[in-house]
Amino acid sequence: MKSTYLKIAAGVFLTSLLGCQTQSINNANEQVAMQLQQQALNSNLAYELVESLTVEVGPRLAGSEQDLVAVQWAESKLHSLGFDKVYKEAVQVPVWHRGEAKASIVAPYPQPLVITALGGSIATPKNGIEASIVRFDSLAALKQASADKVRGKIVFIDHLTERHISGKGYGKSVGGRSRGAVAAAEKGAVAVMIRSIGTDHDRMAHTGMMRYKEGVAKIPAAAMSSPDADLINAMLKRNSNITVNLQLSSQNQGFATSYNVIAEVTGSSKPEEIVLIGAHLDSWDEGTGAIDDGAGVGIVAAAGKLIQDLPTKPARTIRVVLYAAEEVGLVGGKAYAKAHQAELDNHYIAAESDFGAGRIYQVDFRASESAYPQLLALSAPMTNNGVVLGTNKASGGPDVSMLPAQGVPVASLRQDGTDYFDYHHTPNDTLDKIEPAALKQNVAAYAQFAYLMAQSTIDLRPIVAK
Amino acid sequence: MKSTYLKIAAGVFLTSLLGCQTQSINNANEQVAMQLQQQALNSNLAYELVESLTVEVGPRLAGSEQDLVAVQWAESKLHSLGFDKVYKEAVQVPVWHRGEAKASIVAPYPQPLVITALGGSIATPKNGIEASIVRFDSLAALKQASADKVRGKIVFIDHLTERHISGKGYGKSVGGRSRGAVAAAEKGAVAVMIRSIGTDHDRMAHTGMMRYKEGVAKIPAAAMSSPDADLINAMLKRNSNITVNLQLSSQNQGFATSYNVIAEVTGSSKPEEIVLIGAHLDSWDEGTGAIDDGAGVGIVAAAGKLIQDLPTKPARTIRVVLYAAEEVGLVGGKAYAKAHQAELDNHYIAAESDFGAGRIYQVDFRASESAYPQLLALSAPMTNNGVVLGTNKASGGPDVSMLPAQGVPVASLRQDGTDYFDYHHTPNDTLDKIEPAALKQNVAAYAQFAYLMAQSTIDLRPIVAK
Repeated sequence: MKSTYLKIAAGVFLTSLLGCQTQSINNANEQVAMQLQQQALNSNLAYELVESLTVEVGPRLAGSEQDLVAVQWAESKLHSLGFDKVYKEAVQVPVWHRGEAKASIVAPYPQPLVITALGGSIATPKNGIEASIVRFDSLAALKQASADKVRGKIVFIDHLTERHISGKGYGKSVGGRSRGAVAAAEKGAVAVMIRSIGTDHDRMAHTGMMRYKEGVAKIPAAAMSSPDADLINAMLKRNSNITVNLQLSSQNQGFATSYNVIAEVTGSSKPEEIVLIGAHLDSWDEGTGAIDDGAGVGIVAAAGKLIQDLPTKPARTIRVVLYAAEEVGLVGGKAYAKAHQAELDNHYIAAESDFGAGRIYQVDFRASESAYPQLLALSAPMTNNGVVLGTNKASGGPDVSMLPAQGVPVASLRQDGTDYFDYHHTPNDTLDKIEPAALKQNVAAYAQFAYLMAQSTIDLRPIVAK
Repeated sequence: MKSTYLKIAAGVFLTSLLGCQTQSINNANEQVAMQLQQQALNSNLAYELVESLTVEVGPRLAGSEQDLVAVQWAESKLHSLGFDKVYKEAVQVPVWHRGEAKASIVAPYPQPLVITALGGSIATPKNGIEASIVRFDSLAALKQASADKVRGKIVFIDHLTERHISGKGYGKSVGGRSRGAVAAAEKGAVAVMIRSIGTDHDRMAHTGMMRYKEGVAKIPAAAMSSPDADLINAMLKRNSNITVNLQLSSQNQGFATSYNVIAEVTGSSKPEEIVLIGAHLDSWDEGTGAIDDGAGVGIVAAAGKLIQDLPTKPARTIRVVLYAAEEVGLVGGKAYAKAHQAELDNHYIAAESDFGAGRIYQVDFRASESAYPQLLALSAPMTNNGVVLGTNKASGGPDVSMLPAQGVPVASLRQDGTDYFDYHHTPNDTLDKIEPAALKQNVAAYAQFAYLMAQSTIDLRPIVAK
């Protein structure tokens, strides 16, 4: 904390060296930033947008019918908000159909299990796969195991997800979900079932994407709820031989067209330069996609709208990007980076809101070493909104995470994610999990961030190495 | 509170009038009660029993295969605990098969709903019932509505359940679940769907028993989760015409034999007189029946065991009754009352633990006016365990609720039910919802209660009118 303050102080000092003209510009920026904060805290727009999206569209899995309903919804909403430009860009997205998911313990103590198919999983045969389970603490432990122990079995990866404001526990446990099927299949397993990547104790399983690998057998993959994982552990204490039946009817169904939906506030003096604030429009299919990522959609659209409505537009263009198909592999983000390759040099900075609706407690950047203290000084008005000025190590959010490799600076507006993984990727991702006041604070932070960046005279490049 | 203390003081005063012999007996009772409390707080037995029941048996719907597994489990556990007597009594229980439950909003905004069939419901036709919904705040509002408004529709009873330590919100809202189908059918509705009778915001529906009435058409009945009820309300604000498709494949399948399982600590001087402590062995089929009522089973069995192991048995017999089929209509409780009709005059007092695993904060009685202050004095040792001495208006718990009509005194050891209806009758009723320390406090209270009642020299009858 102390070093952060020193850095801020240093930044303020450097800025003051730039003289009176900069100072008066900064004062003007600060004034607008304060005004944006007030307007954001007085506006219910973000909540109204999430409410509308979750009620009128609901679940919108990439490539599904509802995904296109969401695209229409987004275009129509952004138009109605009066942005200078609204357009969409086609993205080819994989189509996966969930089907039914059932599992039960067959022996020694027959009981049903509450599970969900992992996104991308193949089906089991119709009557299921019935096999003994072999338990591992983590993906790493599975990788170290001898194939003899695994062959012919259902691998159970039992990795607990730690609760943390930053959500850092997710990064530690999610490998079992995304790469568990490959690691298990490489040792001859017939299926993989994981303890849900979540911090709750609800009897609800957390879905999420998994991947196969060319040349490795594809095996079905599912997640069980935390109480079900506890149940299996309790049985394993009594008997090491537990037989499970797993039935999935999931299907990969090729590709479909979806869209990144984009709105812009045209910059007043440098319209070709872009400050990108994004979120993703798609969601998993079991909840209504309120916290993941209806909240982000509401936040960045409402923040953009506040800037659209300013009497004087900022220098750069604000581009609000609602990405397609984030959940199924950052598909919209990758497509955007490719489609806008020629324009990436003109991307001043980018940030995505995709971590629920908790308050933003910190803003991190990834810019050049010399720009960083100046960025902190410029961002000082954000501290009035409860945002601490953080590090120069931002990743920017999933759909902009590929931009730093192309030289684009990014920022992470870090949200309190203490309970995010209680609901993430479950049927419990519904509107009631959003606190309207926290959502307003997010809008204020994004509006301030976008405005200040669009007005900035700092050269952010070249960004620091990771 | 003040009046309670006055009553206690009065009771203590009256007791002191009975002279030195009573005083020394009371001192001895108090000493044993304190010892039972210590032993209970040091023992993990109740938790071990719930753990065993939920892991080795799991869901045990009355009349199912698992119900008989639970009966075997109970007999075997009670035997192994060394009770003086263990036996079972056959009970004919209705058999209901849940089948599949699916529902979705068809128009104006197609979305799936998370629902569960209510216990006892008939099935819909295979392709479901598709109709407009008509919403009511409560069962009372439905009853007042004109049939014209209801005919041909799916009735949606949207009664919020209030959170309260005593669980009193449940009593206010549960009528819509148990009697909603009859009230709706009487006005020509084609189905009934209720907001779950629960205090949570989880996207999990709460099941529970519903009833039909001779001469009134049987219509399918389901509950939706709280977020789903919110969703429908949000749509109703936009459009009064919401079409829902409801598919249930539930079936009533006649009757089967289950059992009340009973264990006894034989009384030393009045073995024919009975202090009954009960719980119910059956559970709903979606959770593992941990809080409802595995906790009660663990509590009363462990309390009985502590008394069984005392060097000197109390005067009266302690009878631990694990009732069959409580969930489907207090079937075991009614069967017990009938089978033991001739013996009910010898039932000194009865109490059932069936409200989860929260701490006991109060004990209520239902005895004669004159006995009541003496009972408070006798129960004074329970206050050391955090139990306040309460009223003379106990109901005793579901399976003993029919005994006062036969003159039998009852007691209610009131548990903190603040979060009970978050989990009640859902898949979330699992072992992790039980706090081991709270369970121990319950065992202490039941052991003290049962012992003191078995030693009591107070004449409890005739009990006060309700």
